[in-house]
Amino acid sequence: MPVEAAPSFLWVEEIPARGERLVPGAEDAHYLTRVCRARAGEQVTLTDGRGTRARAVLIDAGRRPVVEVLEVERLAASRSALLLCGAPERGRADWMIEKVAELGVAALQPVHCERAAWPPAEVRVTRWHRLAVAALRQSRSCFLLDVRAPVPLAEAIGSLPAHAALYVADPDGEAGAMVTPPSSGVAVGLVGPAPGLAESEVGWASAAGFLPICLSDNRLRSETAALAWSGWWACGSPGVGRK
Amino acid sequence: MPVEAAPSFLWVEEIPARGERLVPGAEDAHYLTRVCRARAGEQVTLTDGRGTRARAVLIDAGRRPVVEVLEVERLAASRSALLLCGAPERGRADWMIEKVAELGVAALQPVHCERAAWPPAEVRVTRWHRLAVAALRQSRSCFLLDVRAPVPLAEAIGSLPAHAALYVADPDGEAGAMVTPPSSGVAVGLVGPAPGLAESEVGWASAAGFLPICLSDNRLRSETAALAWSGWWACGSPGVGRK
Repeated sequence: MPVEAAPSFLWVEEIPARGERLVPGAEDAHYLTRVCRARAGEQVTLTDGRGTRARAVLIDAGRRPVVEVLEVERLAASRSALLLCGAPERGRADWMIEKVAELGVAALQPVHCERAAWPPAEVRVTRWHRLAVAALRQSRSCFLLDVRAPVPLAEAIGSLPAHAALYVADPDGEAGAMVTPPSSGVAVGLVGPAPGLAESEVGWASAAGFLPICLSDNRLRSETAALAWSGWWACGSPGVGRK
Repeated sequence: MPVEAAPSFLWVEEIPARGERLVPGAEDAHYLTRVCRARAGEQVTLTDGRGTRARAVLIDAGRRPVVEVLEVERLAASRSALLLCGAPERGRADWMIEKVAELGVAALQPVHCERAAWPPAEVRVTRWHRLAVAALRQSRSCFLLDVRAPVPLAEAIGSLPAHAALYVADPDGEAGAMVTPPSSGVAVGLVGPAPGLAESEVGWASAAGFLPICLSDNRLRSETAALAWSGWWACGSPGVGRK
């Protein structure tokens, strides 16, 4: 039975070595025995969200389920995406995070922009992490979306990964379908906040080498543009790591 | 002042002729005078959601606002998208409709599939229409998403528009970025329900000429795949009709 056929899929901070056992926390226990209705002897897939995947078996399906690791493998991501995103309208960040995570973006860096800042975010980052874990489970991905605490846009632009391909969502940019998303390496997308990027910010992005791409004829909300960019990037996968 | 610079954007069933007046309903009146804070003398854009756009002026900004049509123009859509979509998990249809509408899809045809049917939908179709109107306003589009009542998949496949380009979201399909979305004509996307398409349904789609395309390495929820397909299509616009 291949690893990917296991119906239960758990994220754990650290994957135990082969032959070792793990007692999942209360929420994961509920997911295993109630949501997936896994029984003793059934397979479970574990991931640390950093590319490690383990085939495990449910030893005990009681109130405190116990899982034993059978086999550990390490997957490499041949490509990854970082999304810099201005604040969408209130109440729209949660599902954006779920969708961006499902589409396999590696990291979401919320950015404070001239025309809109993210609200104070400590509690949010914790909730966002939970949403990212839920999306990972759903999409059976071994790469957990890293949702970071908001920083000013200038700071984010000042600390971009080296050799990344840079794109900014811009209604006046080149049609997305005319630009092939990179099939390897890091792609960075920048999406403005609900009121849009200020001219100075567009200038910074341009100076930093961001290529303007147009994702739709329509004016898109921030979260829709974030999702459209993530989808554009996700489409460019050569299928490496397909589950 | 160009038509597109008007801050208020209203959908109306029928656009009056040039020089004629219109009294918006209560909801639109609230939107005009409270949300947009439009004042007498300010411009308003009207659309019928079928490609007709009018420049108008707010004559009276009181409790019963009055709008006078100054100029009417007719826009042609050089391309359009029809999305056939199986039922997503409960509670996930509303935002899918909002996003699909924002991305400029012309029609959403919910389809009943072997493994999942849409719940009874009369009330929903009315609500979905309201969501589509809100998205049209937001995205300043002159084409309203037509959200149809659910039909069986076989029926939808049996009544496809002629000469349409057909695509089915399929993790084993060709990478989306390797397939150029059509720059004109009708594109039809098929997305399975939450439990996926049955084998027989995949067979029907194949027999009808649907091209399988892969939108992500990750397993996507139905609504995420619907959005990813819509974004894939939206990216392919040559910019005709850009506002």
